[in-house]
Amino acid sequence: MSTAMDYTRGEQWLIGESRFCREQLGKAESVFSLGNGYMGLRSATEEGYLGERRGLFVAGCFNCASENEVTELPNGPDVLGAELTLNGCRFALDTGKILSYDRTLNLRTGELRRSVTWEAPEGEQYQLEFTRFVSRARLPLIGQKITLRPISGEVDVVLRSGLNGQMTNSGAQHFLELQKRSYDRKYLQYTSKTNQSGIDFVATQTHLFQVNGEARHIPGVMAMGRRKIFGDYALHLNGGDTLVVEKLSTIHTSRDKALEACTTQEIQEYGLAAIREVEALGYDALFAESKALWEKEWAESEIQVTSENPFDQLAIRFAQYHLSIMTPSHDDRMSVGAKGLSGEGYKGHTFWDCDQFVLPYFTFTQPEKAKSLCSYRYNTLPGARKKAEEGGFRGAQFPWESAWVSDGEVTPALGDADLITGLPQVIWTGKIEQHITADVVYGIWQYVQATGDMAFLREKGYPVILETARFWCSRLEEGPDGRLHLNDVIGPDEYKEHVSDNAYTNYMAWWNMTLAKKCLETLGGEGELQAKLADCIARIYLPQPDETGLMAQDATYLTLRDIDLTKYKNQDYVLGIYKDYNAHQLNSIQVSKQADILILFYLLENLFDEKTKAVNYRYYEARTLHDSSLSLSTHCILASDLDEREQAYGFFRKASEIDLGPNMRSSDEGIHSASIGGIWQSLIFGLAGVRLTDGVLRIRPRLPKAISRIAFPLWWQGERLKVMVEGNTITIHNTNRGTTHVYTDCYQSR
Amino acid sequence: MSTAMDYTRGEQWLIGESRFCREQLGKAESVFSLGNGYMGLRSATEEGYLGERRGLFVAGCFNCASENEVTELPNGPDVLGAELTLNGCRFALDTGKILSYDRTLNLRTGELRRSVTWEAPEGEQYQLEFTRFVSRARLPLIGQKITLRPISGEVDVVLRSGLNGQMTNSGAQHFLELQKRSYDRKYLQYTSKTNQSGIDFVATQTHLFQVNGEARHIPGVMAMGRRKIFGDYALHLNGGDTLVVEKLSTIHTSRDKALEACTTQEIQEYGLAAIREVEALGYDALFAESKALWEKEWAESEIQVTSENPFDQLAIRFAQYHLSIMTPSHDDRMSVGAKGLSGEGYKGHTFWDCDQFVLPYFTFTQPEKAKSLCSYRYNTLPGARKKAEEGGFRGAQFPWESAWVSDGEVTPALGDADLITGLPQVIWTGKIEQHITADVVYGIWQYVQATGDMAFLREKGYPVILETARFWCSRLEEGPDGRLHLNDVIGPDEYKEHVSDNAYTNYMAWWNMTLAKKCLETLGGEGELQAKLADCIARIYLPQPDETGLMAQDATYLTLRDIDLTKYKNQDYVLGIYKDYNAHQLNSIQVSKQADILILFYLLENLFDEKTKAVNYRYYEARTLHDSSLSLSTHCILASDLDEREQAYGFFRKASEIDLGPNMRSSDEGIHSASIGGIWQSLIFGLAGVRLTDGVLRIRPRLPKAISRIAFPLWWQGERLKVMVEGNTITIHNTNRGTTHVYTDCYQSR
Repeated sequence: MSTAMDYTRGEQWLIGESRFCREQLGKAESVFSLGNGYMGLRSATEEGYLGERRGLFVAGCFNCASENEVTELPNGPDVLGAELTLNGCRFALDTGKILSYDRTLNLRTGELRRSVTWEAPEGEQYQLEFTRFVSRARLPLIGQKITLRPISGEVDVVLRSGLNGQMTNSGAQHFLELQKRSYDRKYLQYTSKTNQSGIDFVATQTHLFQVNGEARHIPGVMAMGRRKIFGDYALHLNGGDTLVVEKLSTIHTSRDKALEACTTQEIQEYGLAAIREVEALGYDALFAESKALWEKEWAESEIQVTSENPFDQLAIRFAQYHLSIMTPSHDDRMSVGAKGLSGEGYKGHTFWDCDQFVLPYFTFTQPEKAKSLCSYRYNTLPGARKKAEEGGFRGAQFPWESAWVSDGEVTPALGDADLITGLPQVIWTGKIEQHITADVVYGIWQYVQATGDMAFLREKGYPVILETARFWCSRLEEGPDGRLHLNDVIGPDEYKEHVSDNAYTNYMAWWNMTLAKKCLETLGGEGELQAKLADCIARIYLPQPDETGLMAQDATYLTLRDIDLTKYKNQDYVLGIYKDYNAHQLNSIQVSKQADILILFYLLENLFDEKTKAVNYRYYEARTLHDSSLSLSTHCILASDLDEREQAYGFFRKASEIDLGPNMRSSDEGIHSASIGGIWQSLIFGLAGVRLTDGVLRIRPRLPKAISRIAFPLWWQGERLKVMVEGNTITIHNTNRGTTHVYTDCYQSR
Repeated sequence: MSTAMDYTRGEQWLIGESRFCREQLGKAESVFSLGNGYMGLRSATEEGYLGERRGLFVAGCFNCASENEVTELPNGPDVLGAELTLNGCRFALDTGKILSYDRTLNLRTGELRRSVTWEAPEGEQYQLEFTRFVSRARLPLIGQKITLRPISGEVDVVLRSGLNGQMTNSGAQHFLELQKRSYDRKYLQYTSKTNQSGIDFVATQTHLFQVNGEARHIPGVMAMGRRKIFGDYALHLNGGDTLVVEKLSTIHTSRDKALEACTTQEIQEYGLAAIREVEALGYDALFAESKALWEKEWAESEIQVTSENPFDQLAIRFAQYHLSIMTPSHDDRMSVGAKGLSGEGYKGHTFWDCDQFVLPYFTFTQPEKAKSLCSYRYNTLPGARKKAEEGGFRGAQFPWESAWVSDGEVTPALGDADLITGLPQVIWTGKIEQHITADVVYGIWQYVQATGDMAFLREKGYPVILETARFWCSRLEEGPDGRLHLNDVIGPDEYKEHVSDNAYTNYMAWWNMTLAKKCLETLGGEGELQAKLADCIARIYLPQPDETGLMAQDATYLTLRDIDLTKYKNQDYVLGIYKDYNAHQLNSIQVSKQADILILFYLLENLFDEKTKAVNYRYYEARTLHDSSLSLSTHCILASDLDEREQAYGFFRKASEIDLGPNMRSSDEGIHSASIGGIWQSLIFGLAGVRLTDGVLRIRPRLPKAISRIAFPLWWQGERLKVMVEGNTITIHNTNRGTTHVYTDCYQSR
């Protein structure tokens, strides 16, 4: 069974679905999802199907549903649902016949369009079109348009449409129902409140009708069910008539900065006023103002890839589209979730996926958004201090999973079944996957270096750098050898739990402390910390390559049993090894879930020589199942660095397929934001060879055979560069200065 | 569009569904629902469809999900779900082709069977059969059997099956997840706890496999999702092989009397032990022991109707089946909900539906169960006292809606949309529909009279009778006329709110006080109450017929506007008038939702002469929309009393159609327990003319043309009578004494 995804249309701006495919409902909902950083809207159909995962998530509105849960982004009221009854028969694509079908997401405009010619079971034929967008111009607005044309004759139409607050997060209900009401038999409003965090959600909606281009007033028969309010709109069409229904919905919450001080009633009034305002404009004008902002963004950020495989061009646009809609840059109390705003997966929590995989895209292309994401980490310092204190440490330890700014650590305690014991597995990451604290600093430091934003460094950067270094100093443990170790951690490779001296973690901690020491040399003061840092930097254990160049991922990895991993490397799905081994058993085998030590060679590339990188790349890649979506882009970058261009290209293509590829279930719970950031990183840091190391910007292209040219924007020190790599030629146009320079093989900023 | 229900099979023991019909999913789930009084299981399919209302309700396990809700029976974890993947294609009846289809509920055995020949989209053909039962022998047990035979060739089968705790009540989540685990890759257990009442729910499950009659061990690959645990069982079949999967599930709760004192862990261990025990027996033996108890019940309670319309026979069996499964007679802290245990509707709450419409069936056929229901009301006296006190009254006022014994009033505050204001309507019944307090007493007194159970009367009857009479004394208000009135009430006709001197309520209050006074004359004591009762009985305002015989339903009804109700009387759905009028407007029109004053003529028949009954029957029936399922049986009984036999038969048939009729949405939220009790009442109290008045049992048959004979059991004063009415001949066989007597026209016990 293969997907119905179609990537061949519209000069690589369109992602299509060429047939109605129930098996990929969830995947399509995620891949086609709409959003604007304020909210994310999964692309469930109007009419609904079993197995769908309908979802609407508003950034930052975290709530803990009940005592045995952790906080998460709640699934808001459904505004999309619309049931069309045509001559007594409910429109649904799994009944009757589909005479034509097309669903297309336009990445350039942010509009989703579905066109269907449908034959009802009784034989009548209808042309239907559904379009929708989430506005970039008015963040709380969702626009929908339904066009119906009976082909074969007259039809009695009943549209049942409204607001449905029965949505849950896989059964967890986050909302108390406060009020549902209609106004003037025309406007619907559903008001609810998160049951723990007390955030008001006000959804307001109206419907506009046109027949053959003329507005028609169709009074709804309003009805309320439990947690829902809807209207029944009935009318009669003749054959060849065209009915257009515009459905406009807004979602306001008391999390919105402008509404924070408002009462629930004031938010309700605000919502009603907003819906009256957009009603006066109508779908087309509202879509036009949103589209204009999309066009502006593309004009500034478009990347052109000239490839034998046109899909490569589409993949990077897909990545940029999702990077744009997943990022709540309107509010620096919010960050990017591991699934963006495109699904329930990972509960809307922010992981190191943001700092190491998503943030670089914004740092180098839209630094204002990067600043907002970096500010989020600064804003969560109180929670990070709390986490450090709870662990008996000093300074600030960033949580493995992060939600609202004051929440601190929010990683769930238990996961999927342990094959052997039958009990849920303990999730250890929240307790011992500690490298994130250095990852946060790395992301911030990269932002500061790339932008030269010294104001940010002074106000928000230094506190993070110093507090995290203070944490590492307190975290290090002296061993019998007199060196300082990090025992009982998880590195990036999550198949290895409770290890000591994970190379990635130790080096990044060392780097973090070294950076803090340098900062203190500039800032002065903090004598005690300076001394402590000097001692820790001198004594921290940093694994070294052996005589062959091989470095140990951790203290025990190289002593573990080697097994034949062919079966798992060839599986077309991930995590298959859990069907044969539980976590405890995986701990005793030389198998890695994802890139671990290899990330080190890329992030701190100047510390290691080429031979070390090559030896370890070969050794560890053979033992890595790429069972995490974070793995492929790192491998692409490292393969490029090692001039293994075709391998690198292979990893780039695989990374592009994590969400767009043939696996029909991989994206059910949302797209993979780290992987999507990784598509950009693979292309720009990998194939195009861009790197920022020790303050130096370098471009050393390693284009594979299939790709002859990549043109991309790059922000550097407040200036916008237009870069083109073509073979080994690098052309850099500085749009601020109006200068153009051409380089061969490699460019370095100094 | 008509239903696919088929009533023509199996000598009126079978209710069939002759084609797969998505439009009646909800109706079929309710009508076909299984149960044993301990729990009710809606008959959702294994594979699931959009629009289904999957549900499992355990009696008495009330919980209030959150602060803006009222307590209700929570929807327990789903145990039925099973996804069959055949050569990579998910079995679902809305894909591929249905070559044959039959679903049948066997009322005699309590087994639901679904047989399908299905052609997959790729062309392979399969024979599938699904059977299931809820055990009468082991209350917490649900048995399922799935039989699969590939017709066209070999097949790779994957069964995904387990326990799903994502269920909600229309979005309201009642459960905290406590634990999910598997044992021995064979047993699944899902443990949750209601979030307010703290009731543990432990669902335990196992799967047994046979291929061609031989047991086969198929280890499951166990997996957990959020709020669910399931196994994937894979095997290969050759063409013509037969796979049988038995799925056995138990639901234990800490509400179970035997488990009340247990810890959660002890209940889990108990559940595991129980599942091992039933596993050793297997589906067939378990079903046999349940069927044996059904057969015993039918042998004792079967009613035979000889009618030109065989459906009449089926209707009464359908009623008896549902009366049996809806009644939690195992525990007198529980009663019958307005939808039994067959759906979310009315939240599992007990209304007067139980006392006036369901209880009489048990009083006259299974007095032990009637005693349990009467004891429930006694057990709720503390809540009734609390309600009286909260209203500023004395004694005990029974709640309009009743749930757990200590809950008191649980009627929700708000209902569906008001057409005019756009706001939810205030539900007034919980505050001012007060006749229920007398209804409870009427039901108990009927039980005592029919059974002669003086021990019950002494222990539980007297307290209820006296406390309720005390309530009425304090509730009556003296008017300017010096009489005592009941102002601001709702009578049985809920289209009239805030009325005064509703005839039904006033007479029933008078009757209640008169009964109490008689009881006190026997018991002695309570001098103050005796005096108060004498005064109230003397002074209470009891409306009288005018010169034409017409009586006012309440103080203003006859002064209201008369409108043409033809449109609404002819609608094939109920509550249609709300589309044109809101509650406030309905209050100003002579229109009734349901029988009101007519019930009075039936319950207190000796107080009114034939002419009064006839005049009012004609006047009010013309103004009654029968928008409540409680209306038809009363009309049937009264029409019979007035010797309007064919009209009576018409009402009987309509009553039978409330759940079984062509309206495809009427039973979505569950069957109508009052209407189902009403089917029995229509037949026995109406057509067969049975009545208990002032302690005298009377049988005066009024058979319509179509029905030549009704044979039915009747318990009277501890003796079991077999009664046969045939034309105007009444044959009574006393099974205790072995005597048989024949009467003509009318029998009276004295």
